[in-house]
Amino acid sequence: MSNVVNFSDRMAAVQPFHVMALLAQARRLEAKGHDIVHMEIGEPDFETPVSIVQAGIAALKAGKHHYTPAAGLPELRQAISDFYQQKYKVSVDPKRILITPGSSGALQLLMPALINPGQQVLMADPGYPCNRNFVRLVDAEVISIPVDIETEYQLDLEQIKKHWNNKSRAVMIASPANPTGTLITETEMRAIADFVVQKGGHIIVDEIYHGLTYGVKEQTALAISDDVFVINSFSKFFGMTGWRLGWIVAPEAYVDGLDRVAQNIFLSASTPAQYAALAAFKPETMAELERRRQLFEQRRDYLLPALQQMGFDIPVTPQGAFYLYANCKQFNDDSYQFCLDLLQQAGVAVAPGKDFGLNGAEQHVRFAYTTSLERLEEGVARLQKFVAA
Amino acid sequence: MSNVVNFSDRMAAVQPFHVMALLAQARRLEAKGHDIVHMEIGEPDFETPVSIVQAGIAALKAGKHHYTPAAGLPELRQAISDFYQQKYKVSVDPKRILITPGSSGALQLLMPALINPGQQVLMADPGYPCNRNFVRLVDAEVISIPVDIETEYQLDLEQIKKHWNNKSRAVMIASPANPTGTLITETEMRAIADFVVQKGGHIIVDEIYHGLTYGVKEQTALAISDDVFVINSFSKFFGMTGWRLGWIVAPEAYVDGLDRVAQNIFLSASTPAQYAALAAFKPETMAELERRRQLFEQRRDYLLPALQQMGFDIPVTPQGAFYLYANCKQFNDDSYQFCLDLLQQAGVAVAPGKDFGLNGAEQHVRFAYTTSLERLEEGVARLQKFVAA
Repeated sequence: MSNVVNFSDRMAAVQPFHVMALLAQARRLEAKGHDIVHMEIGEPDFETPVSIVQAGIAALKAGKHHYTPAAGLPELRQAISDFYQQKYKVSVDPKRILITPGSSGALQLLMPALINPGQQVLMADPGYPCNRNFVRLVDAEVISIPVDIETEYQLDLEQIKKHWNNKSRAVMIASPANPTGTLITETEMRAIADFVVQKGGHIIVDEIYHGLTYGVKEQTALAISDDVFVINSFSKFFGMTGWRLGWIVAPEAYVDGLDRVAQNIFLSASTPAQYAALAAFKPETMAELERRRQLFEQRRDYLLPALQQMGFDIPVTPQGAFYLYANCKQFNDDSYQFCLDLLQQAGVAVAPGKDFGLNGAEQHVRFAYTTSLERLEEGVARLQKFVAA
Repeated sequence: MSNVVNFSDRMAAVQPFHVMALLAQARRLEAKGHDIVHMEIGEPDFETPVSIVQAGIAALKAGKHHYTPAAGLPELRQAISDFYQQKYKVSVDPKRILITPGSSGALQLLMPALINPGQQVLMADPGYPCNRNFVRLVDAEVISIPVDIETEYQLDLEQIKKHWNNKSRAVMIASPANPTGTLITETEMRAIADFVVQKGGHIIVDEIYHGLTYGVKEQTALAISDDVFVINSFSKFFGMTGWRLGWIVAPEAYVDGLDRVAQNIFLSASTPAQYAALAAFKPETMAELERRRQLFEQRRDYLLPALQQMGFDIPVTPQGAFYLYANCKQFNDDSYQFCLDLLQQAGVAVAPGKDFGLNGAEQHVRFAYTTSLERLEEGVARLQKFVAA
């Protein structure tokens, strides 16, 4: 066997997630009988709603085992279109909706279809790490724009203008954002859309945490412009992570091209998942999802002040997702070391800032409230002891 | 709304499949009440075996709704390893097996991980069209090597030596191949593997039609070398197309890197599909799959001589997959026009040669025997009238 490892050059830029090492360590501790409070995981703890599961089972029993069209089941595209009308009062032609294997699948389509090698994609730092790697995998350049509490961790027009040049091709915006949980304002979204479209660039808006907002009513970027690419997912709000299902809403002129890429790179999204997702928009499912949203809100309302009182600096109240992005420099100005110590000494797992970029990464950690209030209370009790020690 | 369509440059190389236009036309005819015999579809007509469906349902009932590790469920990786031992007498460390969303997902991992922009990937023409597009999507170059009956439509060492140069990075081999249904010999596979590995290149072997062979016992390329990348799928032999599940066996040194890409680009394959697939290797499932294999063999043994007697030239007897690659120049030297006429005038849908490359494409069509013997008989009766007219 050859010992030479001969990866492509772009692989050097795709780094492992540091949280994976922490998770592995957490599992080793658990295997030894230690109890770990998991606040590092970006996945809802709830199971998929029963009505969706039942629809999936019914589909399997009914022999829905074959490929669907690459763009997805027509009835699911229609259901999503209806959802935009009902929730946002926005009219979206179902033809503009492509069903994808998760929102990951959406970016697998968009990046090769839109971005040339050497071009630049602008995004916020901190931000979701996979987005950077999707850009690198098509040999394009990530322009990480440092964001802070001034703009509630979101990009604004001024920053985009400052960084935009003739190599710039696209801007990615996430609202609510991971790891900060903040939303972009409609005013800023509109200003950015106007600027980027006028420059002939693309705007990709990640709305995968839509539905998980607290005290605000989020609006889709589709209400602002038909020229944006919106990606969304059944994973977070709808609780369907393991089913791998998401969607893109694309400007009409791009649909055929994206469909062509989909025909090549994934043939179709999971058929049972698509049939199951048809139940996601039923009133009883929506009622259950609203109940869960309230539980997330309760968790945020408990965890945020608890962490602040302990000395974590969280200057912006996150209004969405299920994350708190906290400055921990009062305890340790090496946040990865802080994560390691916290896990080892107190049995609490959180995600280190450096998974989300370079900007302030060493001073920050991300808390995910993807576990029950009882477990969060246990986590807080352990944290209190740990930081007091 | 902007009217400018601003795709990446690479999109110009990703052409639509011509069979899609035929399929759309077939659906229009069906909507008008016409009966169409479908011999264009590259998907088994059988439903997923009951034991697999039952395992999927049980998984859904048991709350298997969350992400799995990116490389897949450890028990599924083990089951596949056991399968290699049992079927091929080849020992494959489960760590070398990565579960992917279909074999499409396997190529989504391999191409960006292995191939630089501007490098060349050698493959046979005719061949499966998506493979060419996976290469183009990472800005690499496809070297289509014309193959014919001399080598039973497979690459051989001589051709590879002739085309290999300092830009060459990989060779793709499919055995059994689509659209020709032929297998590569172990001797040739070994010679190619030795040459390419010695040159520091990669070999990607598509074994997604393994299990569907007739009168021969296929061997995996893993029996020949630990340096090859093998991709396989639960879609074809196991009858799980719509579930979207496949796998890669990678040389050990590549596993961590591929896992890192998987963590970024798809997080994990479908969880219910992975649990369902655990039932794929049970004796009762295997018995059912063997029964189906025999049905495919019966269909081939019926369709091949029937087409030959009509005047289609099929000089190589395909020993695998479910395709017959037939020269139709006796009837029309524009095979796409032949497909259109055949559909319109006789209600039989087949795939045009030009979906599979440039080499002899205008003289060839692909028949898929993915429909019952009764329907094939009906198709043959219609064909006889059509070619006699």
